[in-house]
Amino acid sequence: MQLLLLSNSTCPGKSYLEHAIAPIGELLRGRRQALFVPFAGVIVDWDAYTDKVRQALTPLGVDVMGIHRTADAGAAIATAEIIIVGGGNTFHLVKHCRDRGLLRAIHRRVQEGATYIGWSAGANLACPTLCTTNDMPIVEPGGFDALGLINFQINPHYTNQLPAGHQGETRQQRLDELLRARPEMTVVGLPEGDWLTVADGAATLAGPYDAALYRADLAEPGVLTPGSTITLK
Amino acid sequence: MQLLLLSNSTCPGKSYLEHAIAPIGELLRGRRQALFVPFAGVIVDWDAYTDKVRQALTPLGVDVMGIHRTADAGAAIATAEIIIVGGGNTFHLVKHCRDRGLLRAIHRRVQEGATYIGWSAGANLACPTLCTTNDMPIVEPGGFDALGLINFQINPHYTNQLPAGHQGETRQQRLDELLRARPEMTVVGLPEGDWLTVADGAATLAGPYDAALYRADLAEPGVLTPGSTITLK
Repeated sequence: MQLLLLSNSTCPGKSYLEHAIAPIGELLRGRRQALFVPFAGVIVDWDAYTDKVRQALTPLGVDVMGIHRTADAGAAIATAEIIIVGGGNTFHLVKHCRDRGLLRAIHRRVQEGATYIGWSAGANLACPTLCTTNDMPIVEPGGFDALGLINFQINPHYTNQLPAGHQGETRQQRLDELLRARPEMTVVGLPEGDWLTVADGAATLAGPYDAALYRADLAEPGVLTPGSTITLK
Repeated sequence: MQLLLLSNSTCPGKSYLEHAIAPIGELLRGRRQALFVPFAGVIVDWDAYTDKVRQALTPLGVDVMGIHRTADAGAAIATAEIIIVGGGNTFHLVKHCRDRGLLRAIHRRVQEGATYIGWSAGANLACPTLCTTNDMPIVEPGGFDALGLINFQINPHYTNQLPAGHQGETRQQRLDELLRARPEMTVVGLPEGDWLTVADGAATLAGPYDAALYRADLAEPGVLTPGSTITLK
């Protein structure tokens, strides 16, 4: 299994996916046929979203096909070499994947060796559930289970800051609540600009920032420095 | 029907529910027997949560009973004069109400004339669905439908600010996505410190701040000034 799971698509002062080009290029090693899943996009037109990703990946010569334009999405997944899942709304993404029967198809194909690349909602989709999304529950996803390609949860766009004066819960409070309700879970709070690569039974943190590790047995979140690994049971 | 729906429990520089005491007192006009629903609390012990609310309402002489301490929660709802629903995690609140069969019981009792007071998740619960919560989906609520005591959605803790440098979606982006997916909805973005009173077929905004009105037919969110009303169809 080979996955690249990014916190976000756009870093301050950089263009769309610019910070992701190097790790994507390293992962693909010249492979060029990618299937793009735009279903997290709600307001953006899926053709326009696919074009945006295609353009961003031009430096790598990747050929990006939108899954919504294929005649048979399941068949397209079954032969895909590279599956790219973009960000947006996680509930919308899970619903549209589930409605088309694609959750199992993607799981199987990645187990068979297809490379999975996702950012934000697309990184969340690789987790056992969508329970660590920051998104608004705008549509019912037909269940909170997701792909389960990894055995821990990612909280993308991780930060513990709040807007000045705001009384809502911090991210740490939210994740502490999650672990109270779901003590079996492990969560990586993945800051913007960072990513995880998954290969050979382990996930490795990369990027400029430390990530936060949340587990029910830790009194305070642990610190994951870049290069740290998490073993996939 | 008589509802008081507050954005939040604690305003900067004020004690717990301090800003809510005057509107609660005005609504209750001397009635004193309140049933408190603490199910949105995840980490806080429900007894401790009930005590905290009881203490905050001491100036009004309100007697607060936690519904989790009643022998028959449905029966307690069926005779309640005042139902108070506290904030916390909306998914947790809806799940625990649904699991106990209380959504319908509360709906019926409020239609019969019991006063409903809720803040944050408790305000969200009065809406048709939980779709405008800001909370993390830590547990499956068994459906996104909620009490439907009003015919529009409240987004509590409304702000359009982000932490400095953060790339996640603004609240406006989230609500615009909601309306794209659910164009039939009307949403009031209720800033911290504000509340809505519902009586005589209309909801009236109160508090120090303007609220935001989101509807699919509005190019930009409308501005609701304090005193504005929304008619309940």
